[in-house]
Amino acid sequence: MTDDAWVAWREARPPTSLLHLDTAAVGRSSVATLEAVAGHARLEAERGGYVAQEQAAPQLEELRRDLAGLLGTDTDGVAFVESAMTALDTLVRAWPLAPGAHVLVAPSEWGPNLELLERHGLVTEPITTDDDGVVDLDAFGRRVGAGPVDVVLVDQVSAHRGLVQPAAEIVAVAHEHGVPVWLDAAQSVGHVAVPPADAVVATSRKWLTGPRGVGMVAVAEQHRPDLRVRRPAKLPDVPVVQLLESQEAHVAGRVGLGVAVREHLDHGPGAVADRLAEVGRAVREMAATLDGWEVVHPHAPAGATTSLRSTAGQDTVRARELLLHRHEILTSLCLPWRAPGERIDEPWLRLSPHVDLTVDDLERTAAALRVV
Amino acid sequence: MTDDAWVAWREARPPTSLLHLDTAAVGRSSVATLEAVAGHARLEAERGGYVAQEQAAPQLEELRRDLAGLLGTDTDGVAFVESAMTALDTLVRAWPLAPGAHVLVAPSEWGPNLELLERHGLVTEPITTDDDGVVDLDAFGRRVGAGPVDVVLVDQVSAHRGLVQPAAEIVAVAHEHGVPVWLDAAQSVGHVAVPPADAVVATSRKWLTGPRGVGMVAVAEQHRPDLRVRRPAKLPDVPVVQLLESQEAHVAGRVGLGVAVREHLDHGPGAVADRLAEVGRAVREMAATLDGWEVVHPHAPAGATTSLRSTAGQDTVRARELLLHRHEILTSLCLPWRAPGERIDEPWLRLSPHVDLTVDDLERTAAALRVV
Repeated sequence: MTDDAWVAWREARPPTSLLHLDTAAVGRSSVATLEAVAGHARLEAERGGYVAQEQAAPQLEELRRDLAGLLGTDTDGVAFVESAMTALDTLVRAWPLAPGAHVLVAPSEWGPNLELLERHGLVTEPITTDDDGVVDLDAFGRRVGAGPVDVVLVDQVSAHRGLVQPAAEIVAVAHEHGVPVWLDAAQSVGHVAVPPADAVVATSRKWLTGPRGVGMVAVAEQHRPDLRVRRPAKLPDVPVVQLLESQEAHVAGRVGLGVAVREHLDHGPGAVADRLAEVGRAVREMAATLDGWEVVHPHAPAGATTSLRSTAGQDTVRARELLLHRHEILTSLCLPWRAPGERIDEPWLRLSPHVDLTVDDLERTAAALRVV
Repeated sequence: MTDDAWVAWREARPPTSLLHLDTAAVGRSSVATLEAVAGHARLEAERGGYVAQEQAAPQLEELRRDLAGLLGTDTDGVAFVESAMTALDTLVRAWPLAPGAHVLVAPSEWGPNLELLERHGLVTEPITTDDDGVVDLDAFGRRVGAGPVDVVLVDQVSAHRGLVQPAAEIVAVAHEHGVPVWLDAAQSVGHVAVPPADAVVATSRKWLTGPRGVGMVAVAEQHRPDLRVRRPAKLPDVPVVQLLESQEAHVAGRVGLGVAVREHLDHGPGAVADRLAEVGRAVREMAATLDGWEVVHPHAPAGATTSLRSTAGQDTVRARELLLHRHEILTSLCLPWRAPGERIDEPWLRLSPHVDLTVDDLERTAAALRVV
């Protein structure tokens, strides 16, 4: 695959003067994705909402199949919900856990996930890591072996600095001790390969560049009979995992996600992952040349997401504003609430380009970072 | 207001050969609403999802204000969620109710609502009604006076046959005894006036003809301090009811709903309600002339929604299919799960036109019903 594929990726999106380095927040949808959403919404107004949904059934089934492949499960194992947070909430409510159940999490875990677990009366305990925040597999094995551990929750790619955890190895070690693993793949699906796990939650809007308002939850086959879910009278026949699905929803968004996922598969998930790794390395190499900015954990395993800390007294909050309003470069500010387990005491600037990052974009970013 | 307003209402929507008598399922959005949704989604792809949301903040605030007016509360009392079902689920989780709390419901209550209450361990008890299913206010007063009753849930307009309950009177009687009332306004907002209540759940997609994937929950001021809701670290400042809101959502849908609600307010909610009452009466008068079909509870208080039962042995399931596929008339089939409290033992055919129903449409419907 040549760079032409990435030029085509950008050209398939609405033209903009903005340099968008914020896929970890919301990726840029393609024109075809946007048109699919708008087209379905129009069909709803022309033919009726449920008639339109029936007409879209083949696309929705194809999406379910495609996502099952990306999330390491089968078609019956996928449910659509509003967001990744809703997906985790739905999962916690459906999983057979007693109040006070023990959940192991890495210190890099997404803060709102920790709050959600706590709200459900679950007890979280941090997993031992190395200095870069990567799960220490030996220590982890000893801990899950010692019990009691009811479940492990892993953000495969963390939101605040793009750390990639060894998810497949974590699953393998946990399974040696019979402990299930939930993967939060919100930052990983469409970014790095998602290994099979006991459950996976994910979102449409980031690396898959689908619409906002669509999330996914996947549950492995062996856990489906144990899900705490009642079958409503109006759904006598659907697979059990689909009972987790929101029935009244942004269906047009699901139709649009189908197009976005197809585009992703056409580019090739492996090729996209390789390219995103290359893009991330290029950003970190660029940042290493800058005075005043330092890559956070520069040697940690990472994909396309990089966080920077200011080292010359610049106000990071203001820098992010200036980048956007003066230089038309979109980044995110990462405040400590994103990963309270890492006890961060400063805001970071997060850069998360997609596959279409060019050398010119890198130079434009470097030039802007030098003056904000 | 002349009929011209209703011609304009139809002309503002995508042209279609379909006769859409299914607002109680999903109403027909206007072109301006569809364009607002698509425009916001495009802006997300051009400027970034969160930048687009910030740019739309004035429209979203206006929507919150407009909906507060329609739902009988103030701006701080409204939260957006995915759907009316999610709104009720959110409400049950946030309201200070002990497991086993007692909820009074009318027999006409929406079946999935009953299942949701049961799933949360609440105990439902039917309210006494007259022969048409209308809440008997005297009996209701005696029952709430006798206690224990923790809350009353009322579907203001029922989904399966358009029955309009005396919601304002129910609230007044319940309040005499200090019992809070939740209104399910999914079928009433945009249809009939929604009186102030302790909490209201509603949806965008039916009578307001906004997008799918947007629901609302409103909570009266005096109950806000008691809501069981935790403030996440990332939202230090928002009003407490907004903590019930889904943060990651179909924001473009909310922007579109803003346009739909403005259009509704421009027509005038009172004029719309009067017109919908007139439309419903016209449907029932038309149906009374048909052999083979009978209006269900023809004298019950109703708005625009009418359900018919077949009286000459026609298969209602097939009739609904024929209406759609042979006559291009969209209606809904109402199966007994929609209102298990009414112990219905047959499917009904539901007609729910919006304000734009014409005399020609009525004749077309009558002609089709005679032959299906």
